[in-house]
Amino acid sequence: MSDEIKQPKLWSGDYYNQGGGREDFFDKLREECGVFGVFNHSDAASLSYYGLHALQHRGEESAGICTVDTTDRNRFSYHRGMGLVKEVFDKERLAGLPGDRSIGHVRYSTAGESKLANAQPLIFRYRDGDLAVATNGNIVNAPEIRKELENLGSIFQTTSDTEVIAHLIARSPKDFVTAAKEALQRIVGGFAFLIMTNDKLLVASDPNGLRPLVVGRIGEGYVFSSESCAFESIGAEYLRDVQPGELLIFDQDGMKEDRYAEVTRRATCAMEYIYFARPDSDIHEINIHSARKRMGKQLAMESFVDADIVTGVPDSSISAAIGYAEQTGIPYELGLIKNKYTGRTFIQPSQELREQGVKMKLSAVRKVVEGKRVVMIDDSIVRGTTSRRIVNMLREAGATEVHVRITSPPFKNPCYYGIDTPSRDELIASSRTVQEICELINADSLSFLSDSGFIDSVGGNDGAYNRGMCLGCFDNDYPTPVDEESDKSCSC
Amino acid sequence: MSDEIKQPKLWSGDYYNQGGGREDFFDKLREECGVFGVFNHSDAASLSYYGLHALQHRGEESAGICTVDTTDRNRFSYHRGMGLVKEVFDKERLAGLPGDRSIGHVRYSTAGESKLANAQPLIFRYRDGDLAVATNGNIVNAPEIRKELENLGSIFQTTSDTEVIAHLIARSPKDFVTAAKEALQRIVGGFAFLIMTNDKLLVASDPNGLRPLVVGRIGEGYVFSSESCAFESIGAEYLRDVQPGELLIFDQDGMKEDRYAEVTRRATCAMEYIYFARPDSDIHEINIHSARKRMGKQLAMESFVDADIVTGVPDSSISAAIGYAEQTGIPYELGLIKNKYTGRTFIQPSQELREQGVKMKLSAVRKVVEGKRVVMIDDSIVRGTTSRRIVNMLREAGATEVHVRITSPPFKNPCYYGIDTPSRDELIASSRTVQEICELINADSLSFLSDSGFIDSVGGNDGAYNRGMCLGCFDNDYPTPVDEESDKSCSC
Amino acid sequence: MSDEIKQPKLWSGDYYNQGGGREDFFDKLREECGVFGVFNHSDAASLSYYGLHALQHRGEESAGICTVDTTDRNRFSYHRGMGLVKEVFDKERLAGLPGDRSIGHVRYSTAGESKLANAQPLIFRYRDGDLAVATNGNIVNAPEIRKELENLGSIFQTTSDTEVIAHLIARSPKDFVTAAKEALQRIVGGFAFLIMTNDKLLVASDPNGLRPLVVGRIGEGYVFSSESCAFESIGAEYLRDVQPGELLIFDQDGMKEDRYAEVTRRATCAMEYIYFARPDSDIHEINIHSARKRMGKQLAMESFVDADIVTGVPDSSISAAIGYAEQTGIPYELGLIKNKYTGRTFIQPSQELREQGVKMKLSAVRKVVEGKRVVMIDDSIVRGTTSRRIVNMLREAGATEVHVRITSPPFKNPCYYGIDTPSRDELIASSRTVQEICELINADSLSFLSDSGFIDSVGGNDGAYNRGMCLGCFDNDYPTPVDEESDKSCSC
Amino acid sequence: MSDEIKQPKLWSGDYYNQGGGREDFFDKLREECGVFGVFNHSDAASLSYYGLHALQHRGEESAGICTVDTTDRNRFSYHRGMGLVKEVFDKERLAGLPGDRSIGHVRYSTAGESKLANAQPLIFRYRDGDLAVATNGNIVNAPEIRKELENLGSIFQTTSDTEVIAHLIARSPKDFVTAAKEALQRIVGGFAFLIMTNDKLLVASDPNGLRPLVVGRIGEGYVFSSESCAFESIGAEYLRDVQPGELLIFDQDGMKEDRYAEVTRRATCAMEYIYFARPDSDIHEINIHSARKRMGKQLAMESFVDADIVTGVPDSSISAAIGYAEQTGIPYELGLIKNKYTGRTFIQPSQELREQGVKMKLSAVRKVVEGKRVVMIDDSIVRGTTSRRIVNMLREAGATEVHVRITSPPFKNPCYYGIDTPSRDELIASSRTVQEICELINADSLSFLSDSGFIDSVGGNDGAYNRGMCLGCFDNDYPTPVDEESDKSCSC
Repeated sequence: MSDEIKQPKLWSGDYYNQGGGREDFFDKLREECGVFGVFNHSDAASLSYYGLHALQHRGEESAGICTVDTTDRNRFSYHRGMGLVKEVFDKERLAGLPGDRSIGHVRYSTAGESKLANAQPLIFRYRDGDLAVATNGNIVNAPEIRKELENLGSIFQTTSDTEVIAHLIARSPKDFVTAAKEALQRIVGGFAFLIMTNDKLLVASDPNGLRPLVVGRIGEGYVFSSESCAFESIGAEYLRDVQPGELLIFDQDGMKEDRYAEVTRRATCAMEYIYFARPDSDIHEINIHSARKRMGKQLAMESFVDADIVTGVPDSSISAAIGYAEQTGIPYELGLIKNKYTGRTFIQPSQELREQGVKMKLSAVRKVVEGKRVVMIDDSIVRGTTSRRIVNMLREAGATEVHVRITSPPFKNPCYYGIDTPSRDELIASSRTVQEICELINADSLSFLSDSGFIDSVGGNDGAYNRGMCLGCFDNDYPTPVDEESDKSCSC
Repeated sequence: MSDEIKQPKLWSGDYYNQGGGREDFFDKLREECGVFGVFNHSDAASLSYYGLHALQHRGEESAGICTVDTTDRNRFSYHRGMGLVKEVFDKERLAGLPGDRSIGHVRYSTAGESKLANAQPLIFRYRDGDLAVATNGNIVNAPEIRKELENLGSIFQTTSDTEVIAHLIARSPKDFVTAAKEALQRIVGGFAFLIMTNDKLLVASDPNGLRPLVVGRIGEGYVFSSESCAFESIGAEYLRDVQPGELLIFDQDGMKEDRYAEVTRRATCAMEYIYFARPDSDIHEINIHSARKRMGKQLAMESFVDADIVTGVPDSSISAAIGYAEQTGIPYELGLIKNKYTGRTFIQPSQELREQGVKMKLSAVRKVVEGKRVVMIDDSIVRGTTSRRIVNMLREAGATEVHVRITSPPFKNPCYYGIDTPSRDELIASSRTVQEICELINADSLSFLSDSGFIDSVGGNDGAYNRGMCLGCFDNDYPTPVDEESDKSCSC
Repeated sequence: MSDEIKQPKLWSGDYYNQGGGREDFFDKLREECGVFGVFNHSDAASLSYYGLHALQHRGEESAGICTVDTTDRNRFSYHRGMGLVKEVFDKERLAGLPGDRSIGHVRYSTAGESKLANAQPLIFRYRDGDLAVATNGNIVNAPEIRKELENLGSIFQTTSDTEVIAHLIARSPKDFVTAAKEALQRIVGGFAFLIMTNDKLLVASDPNGLRPLVVGRIGEGYVFSSESCAFESIGAEYLRDVQPGELLIFDQDGMKEDRYAEVTRRATCAMEYIYFARPDSDIHEINIHSARKRMGKQLAMESFVDADIVTGVPDSSISAAIGYAEQTGIPYELGLIKNKYTGRTFIQPSQELREQGVKMKLSAVRKVVEGKRVVMIDDSIVRGTTSRRIVNMLREAGATEVHVRITSPPFKNPCYYGIDTPSRDELIASSRTVQEICELINADSLSFLSDSGFIDSVGGNDGAYNRGMCLGCFDNDYPTPVDEESDKSCSC
Repeated sequence: MSDEIKQPKLWSGDYYNQGGGREDFFDKLREECGVFGVFNHSDAASLSYYGLHALQHRGEESAGICTVDTTDRNRFSYHRGMGLVKEVFDKERLAGLPGDRSIGHVRYSTAGESKLANAQPLIFRYRDGDLAVATNGNIVNAPEIRKELENLGSIFQTTSDTEVIAHLIARSPKDFVTAAKEALQRIVGGFAFLIMTNDKLLVASDPNGLRPLVVGRIGEGYVFSSESCAFESIGAEYLRDVQPGELLIFDQDGMKEDRYAEVTRRATCAMEYIYFARPDSDIHEINIHSARKRMGKQLAMESFVDADIVTGVPDSSISAAIGYAEQTGIPYELGLIKNKYTGRTFIQPSQELREQGVKMKLSAVRKVVEGKRVVMIDDSIVRGTTSRRIVNMLREAGATEVHVRITSPPFKNPCYYGIDTPSRDELIASSRTVQEICELINADSLSFLSDSGFIDSVGGNDGAYNRGMCLGCFDNDYPTPVDEESDKSCSC
């Protein structure tokens, strides 16, 4: 590494927080979506409110709940809106959602256009009654199916893949459950589905189990959630993860366990463990915080560097940083801090103020890092711009060395299963060596966690290949056929 | 008439304003909807904003505008929301709607349920691209077509009839204009349609011309509106009324005049003249204010009564009251006044305060009516509850006699063409004599305008039967087959 | 008059509505303020809410209510905010205002600066407890008293004159009522005061009775209001007008009638009759609508002109226009119409759209005025710009002649008593003949009501000079000393 | 300790989060207030916005900024409102605050009553011009001074102590700086003051330096802040802490360092280090995070307990927990997690749902604590109810033992200097032994940090007694006379 790199770059203002509101200043991967459902609880809407609130980190742009009335199963009630769960719903809105069954959704969106029409759950009326659908994930072959349906005269009111599944069900002459199964068999991708009709509630996971989905019990009822953290929030008990290809059917006879596809390869999304899921969630019974701490420890074993302090990029890398510190004996310190009040409505600083150093969200803690050799733990490097900003921020605050350690392998390939990733060209690791990236982000040294180190850190999976995870973004090996040309943004 | 009737009833509190917000305290007929479109004007969205604002009285519950981008005809932009036009749109929202073509909508809704999904224009994606539809009116055979489409596997996301027409178009294998024509031929009812695709804008009126729709010119462009008052507001020039069964097609070649149906019976909705339309609008070139004034004069000739003052129930009956006064020489006075600030968010008075006489919206002017024999002009009596309240309010304020004169024939039958009317049973005139109604509303005398008097007042129509109007709500003679059992509420 | 004048001026766009929101496009005189109080009614806050709602036309910018708790007289509750009464208060806010006594306020403000601090009632804590003050009007010698108080070490938190009276009371060593009387004696101007302490409620009018103030009864309690229209709205009974120099004292012993000044000259504000007050209010027992109708009749007698129709500028000139029509036999028609939905948040049309003729608020009704000789009745001409715009608007809509008739004498002098008037220089009538004004506003003819004609129209006053009215804005004869240099804007 | 204690209590629902919105479910000490000022920077308002945002944790209830115009020093602009900084200000609001000098404020409030009147900066007009004051802290003798001023005829519009200082200044016949000094000498308490006039800006700290206040440089200008974290956020450079009794005077001549009182005893508030300040702030050049980590280490040395994991109560106890873990070698784990989205508008769960275990804000992480002996680090125990809830929550999630370690001595006495503490009776430690508290909170063991251990942890102070800190809440030794009977809530 050249001496040049170790010097903080000339002041350019570009290493300060430039994003505003929820458009994270990070060039981070974007959250996907979260689903939450209730079966057989007298206050289904309120439980959904608290459950979705616990899943808020999976989507801050819109929220929605649909319930089925207890006294009149033919009466669907719903409300959807733009904003956080607490902004979309108030007491009156919740009171307007009677029923003992519900499905709900929080969504991340690229906004720009008016997208309320895409807010889920989507509600349809078809031959056999009402149909509500909430989903997390992406259907790889949705464009193809959509084209086919349009040629048959179908009309679409949203750009959501969710509408595709409703059309497939409605056009089938078979009974609802059969139609739903055939529709699920038709689609390819990574997804978690909650589907509600006037008398049934279906819960389904894609055939590779890419997107997480768990089932819990509350009193006499059941709850369904993208992440288990929501169960603790509502006082429900974790029952089990929905299995790949599984279809759970709930109706007046209770739960029936069925499946629409055999599992050929179990492939849980690696990034859920690394970045997306809340640290207090468990996926396939592995706690996220614990897994991340193990990643930090593993990283310390793989790429130790002598330093004065370890710090993590908040919030997702704190657990790993503590693990790294624990393993190495280098003290963990609060070298970076995030302002928890920044949000959607925050005013962006002018270019002039940015150049003067105004930061909205993340700051380095001068007193902590000044004169110190710093190990900075982060979960991933996407475009590299954020990493460079944070490294420079630490240098500016007086760090003498900044060693970057990443708790995942290099992110080289786009995701096709619901994570909003830039194109391959924009991924800094797609065409560069670690050393090149190190120089670009102005670090003194840089290491990524190895594939096997990552898999060992998560541990405990009993699947065949790579212990049952999808590492497509690292190794380009996807569990389904993918279409390199397709729009890969989250379509839920 | 018995003496009893002339005495104000014992204080009951029930003759005071009980409605709140926009749920008019009147048991009036409800407004329907309004449409407004622009073709070939560089600021189509802003024109729509001002145009819809002028049509606000036709629907206060939701508003929406959809535009087609000038530089990219395949880009539709739209925004819809609950509330008044000025509440739904702000500068930023309007700026987000680029284009030289647009269709817009204001809607009346029964609220209660979450109805944003029904806000128009509805936007669809189908085989040939984008499709936006805005409509005013009601399709009588929509339930039947809907059933049929559902059986073919169609899904519906709204309860609006507008979705039916989109399905019909999308399912047709023919070219768009042919498909649209056939769809229009398939439906029965009263409606005004604005339909926009990536390259065309269609304007259509039902085969009987039940709902008003006018075309105007602005610069090199065209504008379309439910009422002509919007043209004056935006500085456009009235060109002509869209004719029954007519289909105007706008595309890069300008306007093409076509039709999809022959007119068998011209039947303009009588209530537009009597109550709905703004007084500064013209329908088939007859000014509404002038027509109403003539109704007042005609009423004076048909049922003169000696009195001290004439007063009108604001706002719709002022013109007629002035006509009645002019004809009789009895001075017109402000005996009733409406608070213009009352609106949706107004707090309802408690039962206790209502009993003490708190009024939110309409008051009698004591100084004006005290000791006077009053002729009270109103446009219609629906359930009769409002009329009784206003009569009692006048008595309470000291009127010695209250003679009610109605500028329309007795309202006996529901409307099937987009006006939200109560069921036949609830219509006070459906099964009662004028004398019975008079007693129920506690008036000293009551007269309705005769059918022929009404037709003469409107004047100038050259249709055959009843001068080309639909008087179905008075005489039960509807211009189309109707389904007595169907939901008659406005479905736009 | 030259022919030139009769021709519509070249299109300039400037005769279209340019104001937005509540900044009326009219260069009208601005509303002042309104006060409303309650003594001894268990639901004082709600009554104030409905009462202030009825006075909303007197001030649309802020609203406030202060109550005294029934169970703890030392507990004042209050809420004030920017916006309409219905926007500032909701159910929860009202519920937070317990008590059987209250004073409330609606205010007109020039905005711009942050003025919430000025929203009334102002609440003070002084030696003897709490003090709340609400006022309508202007204190001519406030700047002088303020200076004097500042020199004694007083600090001011608002720019409102109301704060002056609180300081005067607090600095007096005498008992509260004596201190209040002396404070009232000290100030010069036109005002209506409601002053509330922990155990008393004072109601006072200035020594000339410039600003209106009435007392009513409701059940066992009393209500106080700037205008009597509020009494009808809440079911209260009018008792009497507060007399010039009078001081009503309410406490546990009920009402005590007192006075702090002798009346030397009774001088009710003429513009209240002409323009400000609601038509259903009575001032000194003269109904406003009736007085305005008489002004119209008188104007017809003074300056008849042969024409086809009479029209009034809405809303304030409708009554007079009907009077003019009744007197002359020329039919009253709806030649001008105002959009009732325009309000604060309305988006202003761009310059380009204004030039194309977009109007937000007022339109001429082409079908009514086309080819007609029009008498246009308005209440006053201030700068003349509005009048010219409306005249041109009528011409543009096809009027062949426009004869302007004003229901007041020429407005030549500023008001010092709470009406926001432009400086003398800007008043079109201050230095021009009627003929010059006529040409400037592009009318075919112009007449003002004579002073004596105006006084006769109001009628019924028994004061000495000019029947007890202040005509200062017409004849420069003010009932108090005035300071030509002072800021004359409403200071309540 | 009895066996009974070690068993989780019967399910009662009361160990779940019962607070809502910002009324923290914790019975924590409440935040005080924060001040931020700018001198000589062209964008003073924006800097204040970002600076106050960084101080948001010191007060979430209201925010305000006042600026002095650069071109007209006699023009003060200000805006204050209820809510977070980002909610109170938008672009337009900020643009309306021109100037190169500003003072701003964030405030914690007990709400309930309408308190906007109390939002700071307070703005006054007095003999010599405008006066704006922002303060953090409490004036012990304010009630006495207030009484005295009221007897002299002063009126008060707020309940804030800040108004007292304005009266004292305005009533003094001396020049402004002398008057301000004498006013500061008159008051007793703990406070940080920013005072701005048309030509001067004063910065002052109380004579014991109880409340923190720092000065920084940005370009040619100065910034003032309750905490240094705000400097990093805006790119300013820390200069120094304002010293006890110091008065900094800024005007056209730049900064003049003066003092109004000699320091007799330096007494920085201990709770700032323990709980209030942001971890990235430095007080008297000691970093808060580092101090807290040392407290955790010291606590480990004083009261080691064998356990499986260490966890901290978020957010304030994380640093200390990591210190405890580092010292003991027991791994730090995420045993408790806080939902970052919960806020003011959040809907409270019904009693029924609370009993079923719905938690809004804090959850235990079952997978992390299940079967583990847990050391739970918290910063203080006030009433003890929160501690008991969290202990029970951990037990409910499966912890086999819960050992509570508190990073401060027992909190036995109320604060008189601006921290909102319950009365002495409600402080669990005021009359109970550690063993009694341990039983009450259902812990297996409980230890507090010793006084000397705490002082050593903070370290580096060079004051005499107890190294220059106020430990009044622990040892009842206050640096000023106090009035046991007075209202001790924060009066800024």
